[in-house]
Formats: sequence, structure tokens, C-alpha cells
Amino acid sequence: MAEQNNSMSSMASEICNQIQSVFTQGETEERTVLEILVEEIASAAGRNGRIFFYACGREGLMLKALCMRLAHLGLSVHVVADMTTPPISSNDLLVASAGPGGISTVDAICGVARSNGARVLFLTAQPKSESATKYATVIGFIPAQTMADDHQPQQQSSTRQLLPMGSLFEGVMFVLFEMVVFRLAEVLGQTPEAIRARHTNLE
Amino acid sequence: MAEQNNSMSSMASEICNQIQSVFTQGETEERTVLEILVEEIASAAGRNGRIFFYACGREGLMLKALCMRLAHLGLSVHVVADMTTPPISSNDLLVASAGPGGISTVDAICGVARSNGARVLFLTAQPKSESATKYATVIGFIPAQTMADDHQPQQQSSTRQLLPMGSLFEGVMFVLFEMVVFRLAEVLGQTPEAIRARHTNLE
Amino acid sequence: MAEQNNSMSSMASEICNQIQSVFTQGETEERTVLEILVEEIASAAGRNGRIFFYACGREGLMLKALCMRLAHLGLSVHVVADMTTPPISSNDLLVASAGPGGISTVDAICGVARSNGARVLFLTAQPKSESATKYATVIGFIPAQTMADDHQPQQQSSTRQLLPMGSLFEGVMFVLFEMVVFRLAEVLGQTPEAIRARHTNLE
Amino acid sequence: MAEQNNSMSSMASEICNQIQSVFTQGETEERTVLEILVEEIASAAGRNGRIFFYACGREGLMLKALCMRLAHLGLSVHVVADMTTPPISSNDLLVASAGPGGISTVDAICGVARSNGARVLFLTAQPKSESATKYATVIGFIPAQTMADDHQPQQQSSTRQLLPMGSLFEGVMFVLFEMVVFRLAEVLGQTPEAIRARHTNLE
Repeated sequence: MAEQNNSMSSMASEICNQIQSVFTQGETEERTVLEILVEEIASAAGRNGRIFFYACGREGLMLKALCMRLAHLGLSVHVVADMTTPPISSNDLLVASAGPGGISTVDAICGVARSNGARVLFLTAQPKSESATKYATVIGFIPAQTMADDHQPQQQSSTRQLLPMGSLFEGVMFVLFEMVVFRLAEVLGQTPEAIRARHTNLE
Repeated sequence: MAEQNNSMSSMASEICNQIQSVFTQGETEERTVLEILVEEIASAAGRNGRIFFYACGREGLMLKALCMRLAHLGLSVHVVADMTTPPISSNDLLVASAGPGGISTVDAICGVARSNGARVLFLTAQPKSESATKYATVIGFIPAQTMADDHQPQQQSSTRQLLPMGSLFEGVMFVLFEMVVFRLAEVLGQTPEAIRARHTNLE
Repeated sequence: MAEQNNSMSSMASEICNQIQSVFTQGETEERTVLEILVEEIASAAGRNGRIFFYACGREGLMLKALCMRLAHLGLSVHVVADMTTPPISSNDLLVASAGPGGISTVDAICGVARSNGARVLFLTAQPKSESATKYATVIGFIPAQTMADDHQPQQQSSTRQLLPMGSLFEGVMFVLFEMVVFRLAEVLGQTPEAIRARHTNLE
Repeated sequence: MAEQNNSMSSMASEICNQIQSVFTQGETEERTVLEILVEEIASAAGRNGRIFFYACGREGLMLKALCMRLAHLGLSVHVVADMTTPPISSNDLLVASAGPGGISTVDAICGVARSNGARVLFLTAQPKSESATKYATVIGFIPAQTMADDHQPQQQSSTRQLLPMGSLFEGVMFVLFEMVVFRLAEVLGQTPEAIRARHTNLE
């Protein structure tokens, strides 16, 4: 039985279930994080605004994965710290993520965005954190474990988590962003062929 | 009913099911891709070898996510193209990924690795591709859709895929790598506290 | 005297002289590498083409430095491997660099560019190398030492080079690209104010 | 005569002279920025400390160029935001750069370093800026023009600078870091062969 639970398929099932349960929980919000992301990005695109992305570590990787697909949708998207990233202005949107609530460089980038009049969509598992409160124009709440609350002393001595530290939050980001792309493709009327044609061949 | 299927929770469920089904299918292999990854990485670590990671686009992001966690496990891991990445030699392992089978820079990097005597673990959905056959010391088969087979003309005119292009392959990578980290943490005897202590604070 | 030669100012003078002498030598070419770069980039811009940049290691850093300034000039420029980089097509230009003549991933990227009909401006110190011959639409010759010829056994046992390996080539790239930007700003009629206004504030 | 001054060789000469003059001016400091860099890095290496690098935009590229060469010297060096970068602690050194004095993410990273007890070597052209004063354990003064002082309204309407914005500062960084590597190679007793052997082949 224990062996069974340790098989690849059953471990995958356990991981997928953990990710799925975050969405079930998130469904109870008045506006889901999916709706917020789609509306903010579509709205920025609608006013010919640029959309910028910033997060650290593995959260940053997940945002980059989203950014690439949005480029495939034909949007004007930019990763903070790329060579070709333009300045942000009042017409633009910054999508930032800080699962645990506050990260010093995320705060710094959000601060620049806000002081230039841009909107900040702040993804976090800690919507009442000081950073979320201070920098978010709108908060995208993702109710998943992060580095801020993965410390359960008693539990950790005996059991090892399948999704430690911020892994659940990051896995949820991946799945969430696939939905964002799916919905935006419809909103923007982009065909699969047009989307695929924007995928780079320089690789 | 259609509305129900378009809710955040049901879309997440659909995505998670698609990811899960790839693992169910992959379970039928003699050695699963999970076993192969864990054994190759543990073996490289056991002989004090370095482990390098290379892939393009969103596959590259997923490999980077794995690389960061393996750094947290205390392994000597390196992302190809980083400033601090050393040369590869015969004691080392390259983990490369090319979902669709062959990508020109993946071929190039694998070629360098092989000509220097290193092992190449080649992750792909096309295990019989020319590149897989030519460069892999060992193939990690991931039976998921990629850019190589997302073109279904009849189907695409009427329906939009929830996980288009290589998204399913990439989602499977994320989930798979979480299992790899979980297993390796046990094999290497790394406590959650030790793992967490290696997470950077410079962010 | 030896002490004098080891002061910061005299060492800087020696480095600057080495860099300067490469340009003096390069002046004897029928068309200088400066003219080639300016004409190719201006021409690509003139036909609304995109301009892509690729090189490895420190050469890659110097190309990125150029790419950022060209973005400040308002050109459609892209670093290969960025998330937002589009596909290359027959209207476009790839600026690649391989000081020592041939680098496997540079070959790979140049091959993709050529097979899609794009022009390839190939910067190198080895204009007769197999790669230069095979991939370049036009060669930008930089007559500086690189990893291909920094091995002088007798000399190295006694003296240490001030600019070892590819450092001279890379320093020449930096200085050369400043001239390219200066010339292109004039050609494109970009004012200093307009250029500066495109510098990102998200940092 | 105007034509002569616009030749590649004479433009290169003008750029090299501007870079050189910054070092002549910097020579008058009690301890030169070269001495400070060599001593701080050698000292960190001597106590088995790690050395981290952070800057934005083109300054960041120049720091990365230094970091790669220091990796070739066998030092434990890390670029902030790389996947494999460990946490900073009191035994370590952060080399940060903010030519114009204060940059929000540079401040953020320096703040983390200082609050963890690490030394911060702060490279800047504005040694009396609030950021330099607040975060530097030691300041490396580079007396070159940056974005903070490239605005000369009267002048700019008539003439275009050969090294606009932060280009002079960045060019000085490149040349300065070559000297740092040369000196450290001697201090650490690294032969050219050993240095070259650490250059990656995965490219």
C-alpha cells in the first residue's frame, strides 16, 4: 500500500490533487484570480498599454512562462530586466508575484510602477501583507502554501512534504496561467494558427 | 453545463487530469522517467559529478525550476549559459530536454557533452527522433503532446485546446520534477530544514 | 618603472592602447566592421525588419549591451532566448558573434536564421573559419586575439597577458558598439532626449 | 578634418581617451577603486566567503563579465537571480553597482546583504548619494558620467555625445575589471592554463 502510494502515477495524482484543491478554495472569492488576471491583461491590451512581469526565483520562471504565451497572443509584454524592456508609464500594467507576501526587489519594482502611475496586479498567498496592501492596485489571491507558512516544526520532523516551500504556489501559477492564456485567446480572437506562428524558431 | 465546465475550478480539474493521464501512461514503461531521473542524478552526485541543464523556451524554464531545487539539495548543478557554469567532462551529466524531438541548440549542447564523454539524459516526447537516437545516453520518455504533434487541422478549426503547443509537456515536467526532488531528498538524506536553508535570501 | 607600469592609470592605458590598435588595423579593410554594422542594421530597420542578437559568454554580454542601446534608438531588436523573442524570417537580420570562429550553438542559431532566409552578420576574428564561411551573409572582421589564438606556450610561462583569452575581442566589441550606436542615432535622426526617454525605469 | 575625426580609428581613439581619463582622475584617490576591488575580493576568498554580484542593465552586464572571469580564477562567485545562487551571510561580499547613485532594486539587494551581515562594495559615480552612504561598507568611486549627470541642455541641442547616458561608466567598468582579474590572478597564484581550463565548453 505504501509502495503503491510511492508510484509515479500516485505521486502525480497527489500533486495534482493538491494543486486542484487550491482552485476549489479560490473559487469562493467574489472575483477569482483567473477573472482578475484576464480582465486586467485584456484591459491593458485594450488601451494599448504594455504589460510587464516581475517575480523572483521559481515564481519568476512561472511568470516568464506566462509572458511567452502572451507574446504568442500578440500582446506587448515585457520581462523586467530584459535588455529590450521599455519604461513603464501610467497606461501600463505590472503583474508582480510575491507568494510569501513581501520580497524586497518585488517591493522595489512595484514601487517604481506605482510612482509612475501604472496599475499593479499583485499575486500572493498573503493578501493582507504589508507589501500587498501598499503596492497592489488589485490583488490576485492564490490560497496556497509558500515559504511564509511551510514551517510546521512538529510535522516536519516526521514527514516530508511532497510540495515543499513555495512549490504548491508555483504549480498553481503554472496551471492558472494556462487558463489565463486560454481565456485571453478567446477574448482577443486569436486562432491557434496565429498563436503558433508567433513561436520563435531561433532555438 | 458549458458554464460549469468553464469555471476556474473545472478548468483546473481538466488541466490536472490531462497532466495526470500522462503519468498513468508513462507508468507502463519498464523504467519510468522518474526512476531514470532520480538514478542518473543520484549517480552523478555519488561520483562527485556536476549536473548541467539545458532546454529552450518554456521547457528551459521548467528545467531551471528543477535546477534551483537541486541546488537547495546541495548538489553541484549548473544552468548552461550562466556566467558561473564550468566545463563539462566525462564524470558529468547533462539533463537536456527537447519535447518535439530535435531543437538545434539542444542538439549542439548535447553534442558538446557527448564529445567530452559526459552522460546525456534526454527528455522528450519523441524517443525515436534522430536527435534522441544520436545524443541520448539514456532517454527519459514523456508521452505528452508537444509542438511536434499539436497540429490537428480538422480539430483545431472547431475547438481550442486547453493546453496548446508544448504546454502539456511543460506541465508534466513541473509535476515530474517535484517528484524527482522529493525522491532525491530522501536518497540524499536531506532534511527539510537543510534544504530550506540553502534558499537564497538575495531577492 | 615597473611600479609605474603597474599603476591603475598605466594599466588602463595599456588596455586602451591594445583596444585602439585593433581599430587601427581594422581600418585597412575595404569596408570597416563599423560601416558593415551600421549599414546592415540601418538597412534592416529601413525594410521594417527585426534584428536579433546571439553570442555566448562575454561576447553575448557585449551584444546585449548593444541590443539595449538599439532598443533605446527605437529599433525592433531581440535577444535570442528571451521570452518575448519572435520567429526570424526572410526580412530580418541576425547579428551573431563567434570570436574564435565556430561555436556550436552560434552555428545552430545561424543555421536556423539562414534556412529561414534571414541575413546573418557574423562577427569574428577568424573570417576564414568554416562557420564564418558557411553561415555569414556578411562577415564583420575584428582582428583581435580570442580563445582561438591566446595560446603562446613559450610566452605564457613567463608573462601573464593583461587581456587574456577573448578579453581583447570583447573590449573591442564594447567600443565598436558605442560607435555603431552613435552613427545609427544620426542615421535614424534620434535625438538624445528621445533615446534617453526609452531607457527603462523598472530597475 | 571633420571626416578624419569621424573615421573608425579616430572615434575609437576618442572613446579610449575618455575611458583612460577616468582612470587618471581616479588615481588621485587615497585608495584606488582597483585596489579596493582586489583587496575586498581577495579578502573574501581568503576567508572562504562567497562573492555576489548585482547591478541593473548594462552595468549588470559588465559585472557579469567580471563574475565569469572570477569563476575562471576558481572563486566562489554568484550572480544575483541565478537559479544556483545561495543565500548571503556575514562571511560574504556583495559587489553592487549603481553608477547614478541609487537604483531601487540595487538598494533592495544591498539592504538584504547588510541586514545579513555581509560586506557591500558599492561601485558608483555618486559616492555621496543616499544609497552609497546607507548601504556601502566600502565605496568604489568611479568618476565617470552616468545617467545622473548626462543632461546638459544647452550642449545637447547642438552636439551628440560619443558616450551617452551611462556608457562611459560602463566602459570604465569593463577596463577596470580586466585589471582586477589580472591582479587577482597574481594574488591567487593562478596560471593562465588553470584559468583557461575553467572556461566552459558548453556553448
